[in-house]
Amino acid sequence: MHISIIGGGAWGTTLGQVLVDNGHQVLIYDVKQENIDKINQKKHPFFDTILPDEVVATNSFDEAINFSTYYILSVPTKAIRSVLKQMNEKISKPSVFINVSKGIEPHSLKRVSEIVEEEIDHEKLAGFVALTGPSHAEEVILRHLTLLVAASTNNELAIDIQHVFSNEQYLRVYTSNDLIGSEVGGAVKNAIAVISGTCTGLGLGENARAAVITRGIVEIVRVVELMGGNKETAFGLTGIGDLIVTASSEHSRNFQAGKKLGLGQSLDQIYAEQKQTIEGIRTIEAMHDLSIKYHVDLPMINIAFDIIFNGLPVKEGLQKLLSRDLKSEDF
Amino acid sequence: MHISIIGGGAWGTTLGQVLVDNGHQVLIYDVKQENIDKINQKKHPFFDTILPDEVVATNSFDEAINFSTYYILSVPTKAIRSVLKQMNEKISKPSVFINVSKGIEPHSLKRVSEIVEEEIDHEKLAGFVALTGPSHAEEVILRHLTLLVAASTNNELAIDIQHVFSNEQYLRVYTSNDLIGSEVGGAVKNAIAVISGTCTGLGLGENARAAVITRGIVEIVRVVELMGGNKETAFGLTGIGDLIVTASSEHSRNFQAGKKLGLGQSLDQIYAEQKQTIEGIRTIEAMHDLSIKYHVDLPMINIAFDIIFNGLPVKEGLQKLLSRDLKSEDF
Repeated sequence: MHISIIGGGAWGTTLGQVLVDNGHQVLIYDVKQENIDKINQKKHPFFDTILPDEVVATNSFDEAINFSTYYILSVPTKAIRSVLKQMNEKISKPSVFINVSKGIEPHSLKRVSEIVEEEIDHEKLAGFVALTGPSHAEEVILRHLTLLVAASTNNELAIDIQHVFSNEQYLRVYTSNDLIGSEVGGAVKNAIAVISGTCTGLGLGENARAAVITRGIVEIVRVVELMGGNKETAFGLTGIGDLIVTASSEHSRNFQAGKKLGLGQSLDQIYAEQKQTIEGIRTIEAMHDLSIKYHVDLPMINIAFDIIFNGLPVKEGLQKLLSRDLKSEDF
Repeated sequence: MHISIIGGGAWGTTLGQVLVDNGHQVLIYDVKQENIDKINQKKHPFFDTILPDEVVATNSFDEAINFSTYYILSVPTKAIRSVLKQMNEKISKPSVFINVSKGIEPHSLKRVSEIVEEEIDHEKLAGFVALTGPSHAEEVILRHLTLLVAASTNNELAIDIQHVFSNEQYLRVYTSNDLIGSEVGGAVKNAIAVISGTCTGLGLGENARAAVITRGIVEIVRVVELMGGNKETAFGLTGIGDLIVTASSEHSRNFQAGKKLGLGQSLDQIYAEQKQTIEGIRTIEAMHDLSIKYHVDLPMINIAFDIIFNGLPVKEGLQKLLSRDLKSEDF
């Protein structure tokens, strides 16, 4: 099968190798000539690994669009709307969109599937799948065991994509028909990863991390349900699973930003050292708005908001959480 | 309040400090004179920390029994029945039993609450609480943030115990009325921790660990439901939370045993180096029996059983898991 990958970043390129391993033909499109050259020299642009010969990249948007009718969207959430507008102009046949980026559009709070529906003409949109789950690209490129979820409202399409990506060596894909839950879990987990990092910065240990992850899932469940997804999805690979890899990993930008907060740095200081957007901090802001607007109880996220944006000292924030009324462990 | 702690091990002694921090009076009973002496010299018998003066230990069983009508049971599961028999002979007033050990009795598959009901005369048993959750004693002794669950079929008693152990400095306790789910989750998680260690021994990474934890929760849910507990409990602190700390920790005996399996050692070799019972391996055996007897699908646990007891090579076991029919992510 032919598959176009829009975005030759760490994950897009890695998925190129997965698809080649599975016998498919891929063409990666990127705007950065440096990344394209590396890929065509069979060097991964982000990791120190050799790519199979069949992983090929191009700087021609037209070529990538015409290569297939299956498009992997591996583009930062903030750029996705403009990329989709360009795609809509070029696409002529009904096409499948497989989104592999995690995030929610700022302000509009829209999920990627909603943005796709808005930007791609109805007759060009054959289907949408979110391919998500606990997956450091650094490990998938080494062909280390990884489980993913292909979520779609179209079950047949989810099964198609499941078979395209699964292999018996290292990658196993489950299907899910809860697209909303999968998309929301993947986004909100970044906020909880910031909070987990904050605890590490404060010198707390594994008990605290397990507590943040477990109670964080409760907050994710509340948001998933508010947005129309299923609670159980948050308990699966796209919720808990993805949260575990993000909230425990020194590699995660979200975790790192939280750690600096725990060490007493301000948001300005953090952004002075780290120019890229910290998805989790943007999500904390968005979830705080949502918590007020819809009266959803998100205690950890709201205290994180006060720490980041209202100057609440981190230790006082922790104290506030611990001095809340004692209650039962509900969801 | 006066509280007797039966068992001055790592966790029992640590809970003694928690209770003293909260203004209670404790007396720890242990059979090992060495541990008693250390505690009375204000040294923790397992960690390099100074205990508060009010943490006191005794070698007199009678003294410990007469000290209060609240007993913390901090005894290995395999010894608990005989300890309870002794307690039943000495106890004269209606008493509360707070179990803090995790495990299921071999062969009978009984939970600690069931053993207490069998061994303590009805008129002496005022109530039972399981106090459990993600808690390395190493961190609680340093007063690092930890969340626990007090589970009981008697909600008022659960709330009492919640208040006895909670403080605003580092320990927050939730209540739960799902005693079965809390007890089962705490036991079965040890089996999954062995499997997580096996993946690490095989050189797999964080994606695999998140996968094992997330799919492991699915197997825990199946056992919890079979035994009459609530699914949701497995998604909380006593299930996922406790699994996260155990399945990620080099300190865990279960994780370490799994790691050695992943490196190719046999069970005999593992036990040659490590004399103490590995709870998780015993649980894998018990859950394998249960899976056959009640036709419950526990794929990871059953493959772990074949690796440990039937000589299935670890890599083949992994291959078997990956080559199962592709399916949806259900519970």
